[in-house]
Amino acid sequence: LAEGRTELLENALEELHPAEIAGLLEGMPPEPRQATWALVPEAQRGEVLAYIHDEARASLIDEMQPEELVEAAEQMDDEDLAEVLNVLPTDLTETVLTALDEDHRLRIEAVLSYPEGTAGRLMSTNVLSVRADVTLAVVLRWLRRHRALPPHTDSLMVVDDDGRYLGRLDMGLVVTGDPDSLVAAVMETGAELVRADATEADLTSLFERRDLISVAVLDEEDRLLGRITIDDVVDVIREEADRRLLQSAGLEAEEDLFAPVLPSARRRGVWLGINLMTVFLAAWVIGRFEDALEKIVALAVLMPVVASMGGIAGSQTLTLTIRGLALNQIADSNLRWLLLKELGVGALNGLVWAALVALVTLLWFHSTGLALVIAVAMLLNLLAAAFSGIAVPLILHRLGIDPALSGAVILTTVTDVVGFLSFLGLASLFLI
Amino acid sequence: LAEGRTELLENALEELHPAEIAGLLEGMPPEPRQATWALVPEAQRGEVLAYIHDEARASLIDEMQPEELVEAAEQMDDEDLAEVLNVLPTDLTETVLTALDEDHRLRIEAVLSYPEGTAGRLMSTNVLSVRADVTLAVVLRWLRRHRALPPHTDSLMVVDDDGRYLGRLDMGLVVTGDPDSLVAAVMETGAELVRADATEADLTSLFERRDLISVAVLDEEDRLLGRITIDDVVDVIREEADRRLLQSAGLEAEEDLFAPVLPSARRRGVWLGINLMTVFLAAWVIGRFEDALEKIVALAVLMPVVASMGGIAGSQTLTLTIRGLALNQIADSNLRWLLLKELGVGALNGLVWAALVALVTLLWFHSTGLALVIAVAMLLNLLAAAFSGIAVPLILHRLGIDPALSGAVILTTVTDVVGFLSFLGLASLFLI
Repeated sequence: LAEGRTELLENALEELHPAEIAGLLEGMPPEPRQATWALVPEAQRGEVLAYIHDEARASLIDEMQPEELVEAAEQMDDEDLAEVLNVLPTDLTETVLTALDEDHRLRIEAVLSYPEGTAGRLMSTNVLSVRADVTLAVVLRWLRRHRALPPHTDSLMVVDDDGRYLGRLDMGLVVTGDPDSLVAAVMETGAELVRADATEADLTSLFERRDLISVAVLDEEDRLLGRITIDDVVDVIREEADRRLLQSAGLEAEEDLFAPVLPSARRRGVWLGINLMTVFLAAWVIGRFEDALEKIVALAVLMPVVASMGGIAGSQTLTLTIRGLALNQIADSNLRWLLLKELGVGALNGLVWAALVALVTLLWFHSTGLALVIAVAMLLNLLAAAFSGIAVPLILHRLGIDPALSGAVILTTVTDVVGFLSFLGLASLFLI
Repeated sequence: LAEGRTELLENALEELHPAEIAGLLEGMPPEPRQATWALVPEAQRGEVLAYIHDEARASLIDEMQPEELVEAAEQMDDEDLAEVLNVLPTDLTETVLTALDEDHRLRIEAVLSYPEGTAGRLMSTNVLSVRADVTLAVVLRWLRRHRALPPHTDSLMVVDDDGRYLGRLDMGLVVTGDPDSLVAAVMETGAELVRADATEADLTSLFERRDLISVAVLDEEDRLLGRITIDDVVDVIREEADRRLLQSAGLEAEEDLFAPVLPSARRRGVWLGINLMTVFLAAWVIGRFEDALEKIVALAVLMPVVASMGGIAGSQTLTLTIRGLALNQIADSNLRWLLLKELGVGALNGLVWAALVALVTLLWFHSTGLALVIAVAMLLNLLAAAFSGIAVPLILHRLGIDPALSGAVILTTVTDVVGFLSFLGLASLFLI
């Protein structure tokens, strides 16, 4: 960055919301990113770190001094700070925690005591709770003594003397209700709640399905631990969608577009290595038919057609099955129906496109035998694709492996192998 | 469904939240879905329709009588009903609209007057607004006259006598603020707001970045039209993630896992047809080298390896570029850096895996020439993959075509063609 422009940028940064600064930093290669980060006002850094995505955040934190980290930490919400501390080396985490005031440190340690990916880790302990035996007028007077309410306070939590959760009191009701009503009389007792060990997937589907703003987090003994608010759940939903998209291409979740060459190449190389093994398996299958390929060179020309169509059809079924599993839509009771339907779709598209491929083959190579062989091979491969598009993700799912990660590689291996095997095998049997 | 179990199911449905019924229906093949829908209490149907995803909703609405639709419509929020009416035939839309009471009809028509995918279409006109020249005590008294506040009311909108938006008044402030303060003194004037023609993408990034619960929707003259709440934005985020996932496999957005065979086959067939054209292009390239393939059959065995590795590496770059475009991270200023980085990653992985492939080739076919040719071809293809992984989505994006839809097909066509061309071409030049 040129000298004159530094000042310009510094002024621009002061005008921006921390979320916008975060977006700006994410769109920068490493060097300008560090240079710009140095210009972000210290009072904003904690918030910017809270808004920025994981990989880009790590690249910033790497360059920060411990005292800078401590200052940023003091500005952050519990759940955001817990996320940041999670990626720090242990000794730095200690440094930051010891520097916080007692109360803040205890809250963070409570959040950090829950495993990543659970509700406990996403909760804020900054929650307003009231007793059931007071009137709304008392609640209102008590609220008025606060300078500001915690962000996204759409309800107050009602607890007993031991901190056990009894229900939730809508903020709207506090305002519109009869001031003489007891909290116990107007609170909602059947409201949704989660346990601290609930998974992120449980949380996102709960918030999405029930249109919630916040939900109480309880321990095993029904004690109120904190609450989770929709803004953190939205982040989880976005990260999850991002993870799915990136993992389907064999990339790490939260891969930074502007990461340096070497770590990027190493991370992506793993996936290329796995693919190399599967494609050599397909090559080995082709190698079994060297005889046929030597005699009819058209087989080499056409064999990618059979494999590729199977791969496309299979990935359509696979994608639907993975989504169905994620939405809990697939059960033993509808599996048979689903399999028959997908086989039906495969057969129908197999017949249509096999006929077209046979016609092109006939016009190109003037061989009825070759046209028939490729048509039958294609139909077989589209049926195999439909079957494995359902079977592969289901088996992976039962084995506890995320089908979004490895499903596509296994599926295309199946359709490649079945495609080459059926086409070259049928040709060997009937044309040679 | 057996007779005895019908009653059991009916009782179970009465216990369930409409959102849970929606999830249940989505996980059912067509016949049980219709049978179960018939058992859903009429008073719940509107809410169930509001929660259920598009394709499954269409399958239910298709079977409903106009009078059933009207009854369901009366239970729905403005923005949900607008979504349902959007997929109805025009005459049915008319029937439903005329049956609603005047006030409700006018509100829906206002929402429907904005194009799909804009903020206007997602807004609720059910919004509480106050004047700037009253005290908080007056606001509080006025709120108390409401039986209930609109859902997700985290703030009141402040407007002038002509309905022009002036700012937002936080509900927390209404409660905690000094009752004698004027609204004008405590309202937030710089709060985020959107215009009715803002896109869904603008909305989701605004809500996600700024952790909002609700936002005011204004027309061109700053008049308050309504407000958009986070629950509807969460639905948009989920639908958008779903759309990306499904479209990457050439499926329609919101494809129903339990749609019947015929329409499913037709929808998916389109994508198979497009793929057929591209794979025949690759086959044609191979066909140019029949001579070489006849003389060295190992070329046919190994050529899928070169094409496949390019496809995998290219789709990694493509996925990152598409995500970068979606997050507005890619600009002219960092394009050169990005291209060099991806070419660097391609070269590095190209060298590593080309060496391994050359070794395997040498051991398998005992030909140094063949090993060298495949190594060079693979390196070339990985560089081509990195280049087109950036160029293809950027060009599509500039042409106004969504790269998430067609990027992958074009990219694999490039890597197939370059892979076959470089491998078979180099072999023709140096080995024959």
